[in-house]
Amino acid sequence: MEIMNVQLAPNNARLTCYLQDKSDAMPNVDIRPAALVLPGGGYQYCSDREAEPVALAYMAEGFNAFVLRYTTGMDCPLDKSLQDARAALAYLRQNAADLRIDPHMIAAVGFSAGGHLAAALGTQSEEKPDALVLGYAVTLGATWAPMGRPSEPNLGDLVTDTTPPAFIFATQGDTLVPVKNSLVFADALADHDIPFALHIFPVGEHGLSLARPCTSKGDLSKVNSDVARWLPMSISFLQDIWGALGVVSPRPELRAQMGGGKAGLDVPFKRLLKNPGAAEVLQRRLPEVVGILRQNPLLKGASLRQLAGFMPDAYPEDLLRSIDEELSKV
Amino acid sequence: MEIMNVQLAPNNARLTCYLQDKSDAMPNVDIRPAALVLPGGGYQYCSDREAEPVALAYMAEGFNAFVLRYTTGMDCPLDKSLQDARAALAYLRQNAADLRIDPHMIAAVGFSAGGHLAAALGTQSEEKPDALVLGYAVTLGATWAPMGRPSEPNLGDLVTDTTPPAFIFATQGDTLVPVKNSLVFADALADHDIPFALHIFPVGEHGLSLARPCTSKGDLSKVNSDVARWLPMSISFLQDIWGALGVVSPRPELRAQMGGGKAGLDVPFKRLLKNPGAAEVLQRRLPEVVGILRQNPLLKGASLRQLAGFMPDAYPEDLLRSIDEELSKV
Amino acid sequence: MEIMNVQLAPNNARLTCYLQDKSDAMPNVDIRPAALVLPGGGYQYCSDREAEPVALAYMAEGFNAFVLRYTTGMDCPLDKSLQDARAALAYLRQNAADLRIDPHMIAAVGFSAGGHLAAALGTQSEEKPDALVLGYAVTLGATWAPMGRPSEPNLGDLVTDTTPPAFIFATQGDTLVPVKNSLVFADALADHDIPFALHIFPVGEHGLSLARPCTSKGDLSKVNSDVARWLPMSISFLQDIWGALGVVSPRPELRAQMGGGKAGLDVPFKRLLKNPGAAEVLQRRLPEVVGILRQNPLLKGASLRQLAGFMPDAYPEDLLRSIDEELSKV
Amino acid sequence: MEIMNVQLAPNNARLTCYLQDKSDAMPNVDIRPAALVLPGGGYQYCSDREAEPVALAYMAEGFNAFVLRYTTGMDCPLDKSLQDARAALAYLRQNAADLRIDPHMIAAVGFSAGGHLAAALGTQSEEKPDALVLGYAVTLGATWAPMGRPSEPNLGDLVTDTTPPAFIFATQGDTLVPVKNSLVFADALADHDIPFALHIFPVGEHGLSLARPCTSKGDLSKVNSDVARWLPMSISFLQDIWGALGVVSPRPELRAQMGGGKAGLDVPFKRLLKNPGAAEVLQRRLPEVVGILRQNPLLKGASLRQLAGFMPDAYPEDLLRSIDEELSKV
Repeated sequence: MEIMNVQLAPNNARLTCYLQDKSDAMPNVDIRPAALVLPGGGYQYCSDREAEPVALAYMAEGFNAFVLRYTTGMDCPLDKSLQDARAALAYLRQNAADLRIDPHMIAAVGFSAGGHLAAALGTQSEEKPDALVLGYAVTLGATWAPMGRPSEPNLGDLVTDTTPPAFIFATQGDTLVPVKNSLVFADALADHDIPFALHIFPVGEHGLSLARPCTSKGDLSKVNSDVARWLPMSISFLQDIWGALGVVSPRPELRAQMGGGKAGLDVPFKRLLKNPGAAEVLQRRLPEVVGILRQNPLLKGASLRQLAGFMPDAYPEDLLRSIDEELSKV
Repeated sequence: MEIMNVQLAPNNARLTCYLQDKSDAMPNVDIRPAALVLPGGGYQYCSDREAEPVALAYMAEGFNAFVLRYTTGMDCPLDKSLQDARAALAYLRQNAADLRIDPHMIAAVGFSAGGHLAAALGTQSEEKPDALVLGYAVTLGATWAPMGRPSEPNLGDLVTDTTPPAFIFATQGDTLVPVKNSLVFADALADHDIPFALHIFPVGEHGLSLARPCTSKGDLSKVNSDVARWLPMSISFLQDIWGALGVVSPRPELRAQMGGGKAGLDVPFKRLLKNPGAAEVLQRRLPEVVGILRQNPLLKGASLRQLAGFMPDAYPEDLLRSIDEELSKV
Repeated sequence: MEIMNVQLAPNNARLTCYLQDKSDAMPNVDIRPAALVLPGGGYQYCSDREAEPVALAYMAEGFNAFVLRYTTGMDCPLDKSLQDARAALAYLRQNAADLRIDPHMIAAVGFSAGGHLAAALGTQSEEKPDALVLGYAVTLGATWAPMGRPSEPNLGDLVTDTTPPAFIFATQGDTLVPVKNSLVFADALADHDIPFALHIFPVGEHGLSLARPCTSKGDLSKVNSDVARWLPMSISFLQDIWGALGVVSPRPELRAQMGGGKAGLDVPFKRLLKNPGAAEVLQRRLPEVVGILRQNPLLKGASLRQLAGFMPDAYPEDLLRSIDEELSKV
Repeated sequence: MEIMNVQLAPNNARLTCYLQDKSDAMPNVDIRPAALVLPGGGYQYCSDREAEPVALAYMAEGFNAFVLRYTTGMDCPLDKSLQDARAALAYLRQNAADLRIDPHMIAAVGFSAGGHLAAALGTQSEEKPDALVLGYAVTLGATWAPMGRPSEPNLGDLVTDTTPPAFIFATQGDTLVPVKNSLVFADALADHDIPFALHIFPVGEHGLSLARPCTSKGDLSKVNSDVARWLPMSISFLQDIWGALGVVSPRPELRAQMGGGKAGLDVPFKRLLKNPGAAEVLQRRLPEVVGILRQNPLLKGASLRQLAGFMPDAYPEDLLRSIDEELSKV
């Protein structure tokens, strides 16, 4: 393994790069997915407990890992930290070949304030990571208020169709960063049909990191075998969207959900409505349906085929067929 | 084992009781926790895939199980189904000794429409179960609208401090019952400090039941080893709140969260504010804090001790001590 | 579910049949695999802790289950208990259609003395189950000696090519039935190329059953989450050999290992040598190899192709090809 | 993290040291357990697939890791490789403080030939590691014969009371190193009452390493989620004997089994017999029992209390009490 410390302009943030050895015996890992680890610490410092041990956990599953010690401090505006995260992401993409990583498989893995930073990178930044892993992350502006940052936005409000898929976990026993931070962000992802996983565990205080002995600092309340399942579940999630190292394929369902794909009877209304051509077909051929969807946005997850299943008389087969034909051309 | 079918007044709903054998070799299971299983089926029917196999999964962990085939049908008002669920719960409580169950350890385990019924039992009913397990449950009124039930309430709006703890799971691939149904209900529980677990998996269609081969009806898309972890995780959750059969203790954190406990510096503001005496102390001694909490309800999860940690100058030790003394007397 | 008690001739042993309900919603479980549960108890009694709870654990994975309370007692010869087990197996096979089970997917699941009975059924009986699950089973004759049964055989000595595949687990902390009982039986299975799994856990006394709270009789030393993994691992094992309920296929490797298959360069020597035709080809064409195998039986697991890989000069391609041709005809 | 390459005398074998960063935030990991990783490769080379990825898997659980590239080659006597392993172990012990490891928590983790080397270090070496992790390890001399090493001993024959505890796994589908290698070694450990875990999985070829995508070299047959459980199970095993990083205690049962402890009625005969004083008491007071144990060594795992339970008339309470008193003084 090679350990490399890089100073990133303009703030001299330190990016520690953990690069696994290349080996002829393992050609499938010549290029690896990447975990960009963003430790927490209330933007006051970067916690070691959420740095190297997390990098190692991802490396043990085949990732190359990168720990960013971003700029922090009472007087440091969050923009400056975000600048560092952006610089790290750009560095990874620009040097992907040298770092032996796939520039389209970069997960930003952040905890607490670092989770805020990861989520900001996924919403407030032009260039975005390819996935987010958010541990007890702050996303609600109000959470910052008592720490003297009164006007931070709710990151969930900034979610768009280009926000990357996200794995989210938190514990209800966390009194510092209430789980609402995770719930509201997940809700925004759901609204935009962005693939996500959400795991809220009932027991556990703030800052569990891996919830293993090695990140517990000797405190039994920071070891929790239920919560510790978040790490392998996050690996599963990233495999679902990216596949794994040439032996596991991505889940076709998520590929379809993320990738657009062709318009048709089986495509959820919400995806059709984002496609101007398909939206025009729906509006012209089924204006009453578009009206219902406007009144009841919950239904947008269903497809025309599903709707017709409920009301076969209203939507006979030949009608469906002719609409399908039109959709296939958009 | 004894299988017993009971007809419940007034609608003649059928309750199938699965009672494990009593044995002198296992005195710790003379009295067992109970799972009241409420299958789904859109209030049109009760799905076998979410009935007996689920009962067996809980029995294998030591529960006695009860499957309710509640009244359904296009023209059946949901109140009638709820009447059945209430009758089943009352039957279990009234006959707890004969059924060899603990009348204070009854979990209502429902799926889809049955999950709606379980959640309704936990919110709209005077007599409530002791825990809820909600699988891809409907909780938003709008979900019912296209099925001809336009005016159902959002069950999350009915959550109060007396709603029981809930284990919730769903899959984002579920286009029939969008995950928002689970997110919004969990959010309401969070607001009321009710212990809950929430697991949303990215992949999986509606109606996975146990997500094991035995509930798949031979359809591979209904087998998912990630989603299948909900069952053991739900057992963990119920153990966290109840303990298990004399050998596992309940988690003291959840006991405290549920049970009130004594007022003091370490108790979250939200619990203090629900206690009139403690609320009076706070209002009198720290009116500015109460003002902040009113403006920023997110902070109510924190305790006075945590707040003082951030601002030691504003809240010196002797002030804290004297407030603690007052709180300890309420 | 239907519970049925059957008295089996000639000893009136009681077989409790647990038959899951049939449902049009789950056509893939019209026919289920079967678990014939044989509780332990030193042939003095049948332990409830290893009876119904185990049946339920298998039912929760889709099995129909059958608990046999075989004849026991200080003066009862083991043959009589074996007679009961044989009768139960025959009953299951003869009534497979009525019991809705596959007569070729019957696992005998035994613990301690019941594990001895299961292993005896797999070795000393003409009619054999299709798989064995052996929990801290007695297989060594010497284990019985101090209990007044001085002349029981070592069941490992009776293993033949027709012994069914076996899942075996035990704990080293078991001072009553030393793990050697499991090791020696597994070794005999290995010698005969019978598929098996073996899991010996370091910690745990005799008689853990499922190692869950529900089988602990309130004794914490009988709950062990590591050991409790035996049950799902046994389900995996049975799926590897049988597949699962129309959605999971059997492992082709095990099918090949069990089923013979065609002779050829890739087939382990030990399987070739059991096939008289193939053995003749080997003896004639490669007498020196047969000699080596006789001296070093460990090598019998390798194939001719593997051997040639080590020594390409001694076994050139055209030689291999011509031998392969001969083998393909036997 | 610091990566350090050390050349070890006398053969210039390369030891790569992976030392996790020290941090004030995690005082409980100032000193860590150590994994000395010994890759396989038939003593012809050291396989990268069993080197760094394995080191990372242990580091992710809190270990510092050390990969030894020992001397190999057709003409290299195995003694020379063992010399390297001994040198590595001595280096770790002598530099424990600098390497931030506990010199009494060093596990030798070897695979295939590297597993042979680990087992040799635990049996043929004066200075021994504190635990062994053996993956599809060669232990039977006959396995080496066809590779031109005809006179290697069976390592199981060299097991003594000072052999360290061992975690052992293998797959029955391994035709290169038959599972008998693991079975026979485990049997020797059982005979000497050395704590061990043994996991033999039915499916899987030779050389699975972690059985994860990252060690698969892109070959699906080298990914197996059942077999992949060996790594966390090995962590559990090492925690059972050593505890974990100040938050998990060692299992008292294993401590007792390893450490001797006081003589008494509840101590297995085999431990009593190793203690000269206790052996004398037994021989004098219960010569007939010592005779039985000589004839039936299997019984040595039982205690006098257990024996008396079977035969209360032969061993009345006051006899037991007086023997206990004598034993307590030895």
